[in-house]
Amino acid sequence: MVRTVGIIGGGQLARMMIVPAIELGFEIKVLAEVDQSPAKLAATVGDYNDLQTVREFAKTVEVITFDHEHVPLDILDALIADGVNVQPPPNALVFAQNKLAMRKRLAELNVPIPDWAEVRSADDIDAFISTHSGVAILKTATGGYDGKGVRVVRSSSDAADWLTTGKELLIEEKVEFVRELAQLSARNPSGQWLAWPVVQTIQRDGVCAEVHAPAKDADQLNAAKIAEAIATGLSVTGVLAVELFETADGRLLVNELAMRPHNSGHFSIEGSATSQFEQHLRAVLDLPLGSTEGTSAFAVMLNLLGPKTENTFAEHFEQAWVLENTSHIHLYGKEYRAGRKMGHITALSSDSLEDARSQALATYNALLA
Amino acid sequence: MVRTVGIIGGGQLARMMIVPAIELGFEIKVLAEVDQSPAKLAATVGDYNDLQTVREFAKTVEVITFDHEHVPLDILDALIADGVNVQPPPNALVFAQNKLAMRKRLAELNVPIPDWAEVRSADDIDAFISTHSGVAILKTATGGYDGKGVRVVRSSSDAADWLTTGKELLIEEKVEFVRELAQLSARNPSGQWLAWPVVQTIQRDGVCAEVHAPAKDADQLNAAKIAEAIATGLSVTGVLAVELFETADGRLLVNELAMRPHNSGHFSIEGSATSQFEQHLRAVLDLPLGSTEGTSAFAVMLNLLGPKTENTFAEHFEQAWVLENTSHIHLYGKEYRAGRKMGHITALSSDSLEDARSQALATYNALLA
Repeated sequence: MVRTVGIIGGGQLARMMIVPAIELGFEIKVLAEVDQSPAKLAATVGDYNDLQTVREFAKTVEVITFDHEHVPLDILDALIADGVNVQPPPNALVFAQNKLAMRKRLAELNVPIPDWAEVRSADDIDAFISTHSGVAILKTATGGYDGKGVRVVRSSSDAADWLTTGKELLIEEKVEFVRELAQLSARNPSGQWLAWPVVQTIQRDGVCAEVHAPAKDADQLNAAKIAEAIATGLSVTGVLAVELFETADGRLLVNELAMRPHNSGHFSIEGSATSQFEQHLRAVLDLPLGSTEGTSAFAVMLNLLGPKTENTFAEHFEQAWVLENTSHIHLYGKEYRAGRKMGHITALSSDSLEDARSQALATYNALLA
Repeated sequence: MVRTVGIIGGGQLARMMIVPAIELGFEIKVLAEVDQSPAKLAATVGDYNDLQTVREFAKTVEVITFDHEHVPLDILDALIADGVNVQPPPNALVFAQNKLAMRKRLAELNVPIPDWAEVRSADDIDAFISTHSGVAILKTATGGYDGKGVRVVRSSSDAADWLTTGKELLIEEKVEFVRELAQLSARNPSGQWLAWPVVQTIQRDGVCAEVHAPAKDADQLNAAKIAEAIATGLSVTGVLAVELFETADGRLLVNELAMRPHNSGHFSIEGSATSQFEQHLRAVLDLPLGSTEGTSAFAVMLNLLGPKTENTFAEHFEQAWVLENTSHIHLYGKEYRAGRKMGHITALSSDSLEDARSQALATYNALLA
């Protein structure tokens, strides 16, 4: 009895799910947008916006899951009507696709979130700003990621272009956070739920640059409680990433959600008894989840973003591998582009986050040299 | 710059090399014998006995390496004449393919081996037996593995069939060993050589059943010295497995060699900072080798051999995964056959081999239930 998982989307998350599938003897099939995708080893090429294509793909697997949250809901609803097993299901995914729907639902669940309001006009924006110290965050409800679809506004005139395009918009309090955290967990359709330690994420130019696991002196209990409330309240299955703001007075406020393996969990490949990629496969197949215990006390992940001058990093393995450290290099098989997420490094330490970070940084510098 | 490795043979060793290739961003291409091979994700199908097929395959990669040692030497010699990069090279592989050549060469290198003799006639067999307490081990020089091509003989009449077929034969002392060990190491073409801790292997019916890493109270230094003498003396590249007999008086004698990742090294996937599969890829690409330090003090591997009644193990994941232990299950995507190597389990412990073994055994029993 071979278990067969279908992944829509051929990015690095799909690529990294192929690894546990090989180890556990699962069949894995990927529906990728392009021929040279990071997940090409297991991929067929097809358009996820085309119902017929997705339907044919779904016939070849026992469960459909995702590398990204861009598959249109009407396509997923059609699959559900066909009787296809979709995990996470569209009635959960809607909250990862639409920030307005997410804010409404989290408010209903009494999950702590920044102040927010729906935006239908310039007046809505100005009214919200006037009661929030003259500054706020305007977001498009759909389509935003890695800093896109998010803008700091001090007046409705800062939003003129978005207001005229008829985009669904929401406005949020500009939280004066001291740092950003991410709480990764997984839940299977039977309801088993398990969290990894909350981590600190460090963004540069709106893109995740570093992850420190676990986050130093964080309120682990509260972060886990919030994630569990969301996972069960929204009927999420598979891996759920909850991005959090930590305020100066120690409150945690939910920023964004992702219902799939997430950049904040890459450390788990070497740093956890069960990686987020294996856990996602277990969860969507409704199998028991694996231990999220750390293999070392501390792990630091650094993203390998395409630098300004061409560098695919592979040409520097020699320099990186003469360093005697615990760094593990991951490359996603992508062509070079400045700023592109091309890979990551994870280093472990039994001593401290600082030790793990200095090891990862030494490898990072060798790869950039 | 994408590094591209070609593997001849589509078995579980090739399958397990795909994993570090994905992680490190290497391209991997496999020439498999059949369509439904364990390594099918990265495979094209072709006959490794056909020079033209192998030549065409070699054109698509920067180095050729192996999942098994059955590729005819004349084919590999032709590749070398073409200027193809073959690692390990045929002048090393000959010693893994031919036990007579291996014994001669190890004797020249003064590596400790059992008494042995070349067999050209029934008289050779009887003469050897008469000076070795009436019993000896007869082996075919080529083609033996997992207990095949090996026979206990007490008289030349026990070998009548082999003598008439004209097989190249050798005879060896039946060593009264107390246990069997395996010393795994790797060497790259630049000459860097690195060993894992020596392990104990436990065979049942001539097939590896268990591996205990490290072997309790073994002469680590001597085992490593023997492996290094062989790796450098035979110009081996990639992973080298040296199977050893340990005698009651503590001597180590070389039994067999394999020049590829080996069943005795599967524990290294979770149990070592660098797995044998990653190390093999690094070595054949002449990149620096990775640390062979243990991730835990102890690891035990149990092979999942096809039991008497049909069981693909995957149908028992639920029972295995409710056990809270450190066991990692690996399945090779093979159809069921009694006695077939279909997967393995590795469990880790910081406490003892006994603890690691009891965890692995609990998972084994759950999968067999």
